[in-house]
Amino acid sequence: MIFDILTIFPDLLDSPLNEAIIRRAKEAGQVHIAITNIRDFATDKHSMTDDRPFGGGEGMVMKPEPLKAAIDSVKVKNSSGHVVLLSPQGRQYNQKVVQELSSKEHLILICGRYEGVDKRLIDANVDDEISIGDYILTGGELAAMIIVDSVTRVLPGVLGCSDSAEKDTFSRKLLKHPQYTRPRTFEGVEIPQVLLSGDHARIEQYRFLESVRRTLARRPDLIAQEYGSFSKDEVKLLKKHQLFDQIRTTTLHTGP
Amino acid sequence: MIFDILTIFPDLLDSPLNEAIIRRAKEAGQVHIAITNIRDFATDKHSMTDDRPFGGGEGMVMKPEPLKAAIDSVKVKNSSGHVVLLSPQGRQYNQKVVQELSSKEHLILICGRYEGVDKRLIDANVDDEISIGDYILTGGELAAMIIVDSVTRVLPGVLGCSDSAEKDTFSRKLLKHPQYTRPRTFEGVEIPQVLLSGDHARIEQYRFLESVRRTLARRPDLIAQEYGSFSKDEVKLLKKHQLFDQIRTTTLHTGP
Repeated sequence: MIFDILTIFPDLLDSPLNEAIIRRAKEAGQVHIAITNIRDFATDKHSMTDDRPFGGGEGMVMKPEPLKAAIDSVKVKNSSGHVVLLSPQGRQYNQKVVQELSSKEHLILICGRYEGVDKRLIDANVDDEISIGDYILTGGELAAMIIVDSVTRVLPGVLGCSDSAEKDTFSRKLLKHPQYTRPRTFEGVEIPQVLLSGDHARIEQYRFLESVRRTLARRPDLIAQEYGSFSKDEVKLLKKHQLFDQIRTTTLHTGP
Repeated sequence: MIFDILTIFPDLLDSPLNEAIIRRAKEAGQVHIAITNIRDFATDKHSMTDDRPFGGGEGMVMKPEPLKAAIDSVKVKNSSGHVVLLSPQGRQYNQKVVQELSSKEHLILICGRYEGVDKRLIDANVDDEISIGDYILTGGELAAMIIVDSVTRVLPGVLGCSDSAEKDTFSRKLLKHPQYTRPRTFEGVEIPQVLLSGDHARIEQYRFLESVRRTLARRPDLIAQEYGSFSKDEVKLLKKHQLFDQIRTTTLHTGP
């Protein structure tokens, strides 16, 4: 997988791209990450990459020409690539989109800044506009790092154990169950006894029920999406623990 | 505002915390950011901060004792603080939560790693569990940076112009209108003529309609939340452009 990151603040990306898993994936040749400074493609003598918006308003807009030249330069060097603009106006990023992007060979990530990017550049050159969440950042650099990080860790062979990415939160639309590790007693609180039982079926049931309870309490939107997909045995278990009616009510109030 | 970030990979945070706006806010004394290495609070001779989960399963769980000692150390140094754990199991981060956190004096951000943090530590010491989105990262470090970045930029006096944060996407639940800057013609495409009219009321109307069209197309969930809040004049304008029925239908299908 090749990542080309286009930014006007290349230094920002230094340390996160040397995170343990990313660094190992780079060293193993599983990912190649290159940073391109958009400013190198500015054409005027002040190396301007932004200008005031037509029609008035606060802030600055990223100019189309330097970005176009920067995109072209990485397309020539590598391949045509899938061009992603990070912006609050994009489609919502989630684990499904992570999987989708992980099947590409070459991602070109544009870090938006200021009040956004000239729409003509987007229309003609961007394949995918992605938002990592409904909040505003000073720029797309952190968002680009989130794409690199989340996509890299699902690439084949990157995580030590082949199936540990599959059991993550969001591979199914339930939050993960609580976790406990040593000591058995921490500040007077014991771990749940079932975890010491050695009875794997019971432990699985306990964890499933805790996942459901947590998702019901914190993310009713997710439980509503999962409603139709519980197996017969799961429905039976949920009914036994008075959870199925809650799930049904939540789904009716939230929408599928 | 004081940010204390607790992590086992302190080096990761170096470069993003020197981003232009963050750096200026630090220099102006508007924010103080300190990094604490959780490993410094490990008690065994191998400085272990993680251990295997009780009950079995993949991966490692963050141990409670080193984290507890790290939290206590920053509480002693600064103030009691609002303790936030970054994890996929948290409530969803959005611009409303940004505003909420920006009113705190001291945020203690814990970067979760591996399969999560021992639940007993969370129950007794964490005030707030936050997820920046429905995707899995190698750790909470990028999420912590997103909190620092998004909260810092809404603090009074940090952005040059006092009201530029208020007009952002998500201060109202509509995506932002498209932007255009010079040149007037880019690769044969002209900017919309209305933006050259100098007629501010017409430009505002055009931008409002473009915002609505874009939100309808990309984020029906947001338009449904905004449905009840359009003004009389806005509803009239939306009806004139055949958009109001679409909004109503979308809202009915998505839920408020």
